[in-house]
Amino acid sequence: MGGDFAPHNVVAGAVDALRESHGRFFLYLVGIQKRVQEELAKISQGAKVDSDIYAVINASEVIDMHDAPNAALKTKKDSSIAVGIKLHKEGKADGFVSAGNTGAVLSASTLTLGRINGIGRPTIGALIPTAASPCLLVDAGTNVDCRPRHLFEFAVMGSVYVSAMLGKENPSIGLLSIGEEESKGNEVSLEAFAMLKKSNLNFAGNVEGRDILAGKVDVVVCDGFVGNILLKFGESVPAFFKSKFKGFAAKSFVNRIVALLARNGMRSVMRELDYQEHGGVPLLGVNGVSIIGHGGSTPKAIKNMIYRAEEMVARKVNARIQQAMLRYAR
Amino acid sequence: MGGDFAPHNVVAGAVDALRESHGRFFLYLVGIQKRVQEELAKISQGAKVDSDIYAVINASEVIDMHDAPNAALKTKKDSSIAVGIKLHKEGKADGFVSAGNTGAVLSASTLTLGRINGIGRPTIGALIPTAASPCLLVDAGTNVDCRPRHLFEFAVMGSVYVSAMLGKENPSIGLLSIGEEESKGNEVSLEAFAMLKKSNLNFAGNVEGRDILAGKVDVVVCDGFVGNILLKFGESVPAFFKSKFKGFAAKSFVNRIVALLARNGMRSVMRELDYQEHGGVPLLGVNGVSIIGHGGSTPKAIKNMIYRAEEMVARKVNARIQQAMLRYAR
Repeated sequence: MGGDFAPHNVVAGAVDALRESHGRFFLYLVGIQKRVQEELAKISQGAKVDSDIYAVINASEVIDMHDAPNAALKTKKDSSIAVGIKLHKEGKADGFVSAGNTGAVLSASTLTLGRINGIGRPTIGALIPTAASPCLLVDAGTNVDCRPRHLFEFAVMGSVYVSAMLGKENPSIGLLSIGEEESKGNEVSLEAFAMLKKSNLNFAGNVEGRDILAGKVDVVVCDGFVGNILLKFGESVPAFFKSKFKGFAAKSFVNRIVALLARNGMRSVMRELDYQEHGGVPLLGVNGVSIIGHGGSTPKAIKNMIYRAEEMVARKVNARIQQAMLRYAR
Repeated sequence: MGGDFAPHNVVAGAVDALRESHGRFFLYLVGIQKRVQEELAKISQGAKVDSDIYAVINASEVIDMHDAPNAALKTKKDSSIAVGIKLHKEGKADGFVSAGNTGAVLSASTLTLGRINGIGRPTIGALIPTAASPCLLVDAGTNVDCRPRHLFEFAVMGSVYVSAMLGKENPSIGLLSIGEEESKGNEVSLEAFAMLKKSNLNFAGNVEGRDILAGKVDVVVCDGFVGNILLKFGESVPAFFKSKFKGFAAKSFVNRIVALLARNGMRSVMRELDYQEHGGVPLLGVNGVSIIGHGGSTPKAIKNMIYRAEEMVARKVNARIQQAMLRYAR
């Protein structure tokens, strides 16, 4: 029931995933049963999905985008988010995927599933495109005021995630700061630098704002305040260029022809910045697999989120985080 | 003597400014006299600049980009930065312009000129292009760990600057945060929000990363850690698109032709993000006019910096900051 286009986009993405995966996994569709089933009937018209590989689980309530997360979780105990996470907690499901209220998914996941030993602050990482291979920006907006220890945890989780999910061995970690030198940073980042330097992570030192898209490191570590602002800034760049390119096109007839010709090229380039393609971000540091999608998730994004959850389970990301944290336990 | 291409670019920009301005101002060129004069002779060849409108002032030492600012100011007392700022302090010059070591210019300006009454932390603002009119991002990297009071000061100075220099009456101020709601932010931003709300500034509330390029407000307030990271990220966007566009062009012959045709359009759009065009950033909050340029400043940037200094003097920006701060004095 989550997201701006629920239940349509969610069910459509689920149906696509079920059709493509040929029974590789079993899907619980959690929500207001009647509406989910109506949607299913509409979408799978003509080519029915095998009923052995999915089930609809009723959840009578809906937490919407405007609900205050913690209050909503208390008053709407039978929401699709609460019911879905419970399925996961009880071991009936191996992972959870939602495009719903981000704060509610975060809270429900953290409270119900609990944190991995040694992790103080679960985190969300976002994969962003670079001139080289994608890099993980972590924290992407979950933890706003951080202590150095938290940034350190983000680095460990980010390193494990990139290594397990993108197959990068010993990923390089950069600490986002205002200069390359060890002496550059704010109070929190300077202390985090010292912790990272002592660790056996592949720490590349400080990276600057310009190093992210250049693909200088595999994991960029920052607090969620900086991460959120940066990601939203990045998302706004295509619209900015589009408006400027329109200005260019309006200047002359020749410009207009050129702009028309170049439109597809521009689009294909801009698409690289489209987070929809990647499909959701993982919540790292909880005892479970929880993938959080954009409210505006397309069916394709939903499908990719389901695959990502499947992969996180298969690649035992959490066991690897646990193992990595044990090394730094005091 | 400051910047990566000194003294050539600095002298070339100064000569252009002198030629264009027809004696509207007098310029002191501060640096190693012999080298400055050689450069002058080379550049003004054929069309001599009227010697009544400039003078070369000798400064025997050079603070370079790698010098630690405060140490360098102590050991190199006869640097062009120290000598130039002193000229301004003594009232012989009405403003100061440099493309040299940013930290040294900052320190020398703040220590020698002193702060405007009521200002705890002088700041640098950077004008950035938006889909609408340019907006001032303040602080652009000077003050890394800030208290709420400092963010408030940045808002006041930013408001005055945009109103005086860009002719925007009562500019709108946005506080950079992670959500529009008053409850969203980190500890420092939440307190700053309360201060801004109580003030008589035209406070538009929180703005998000995506609102900057959209041109939602005239002044975006943040600490220098966030500001620096954001600006450097923005500067790296054109190179990122260029690399992606190359990938697009390489895909087929048709793509290549399209890319060739679109190149000029792309360039004209990307140029909007080129800070060289704007020419330096003002240090606000000191008792004087100090313009700090990029190390790689072109002659055009230098020229624009000189004009900006002239304008800041003419428009009495500092008197207006002083006046605005008096309102908030306790």
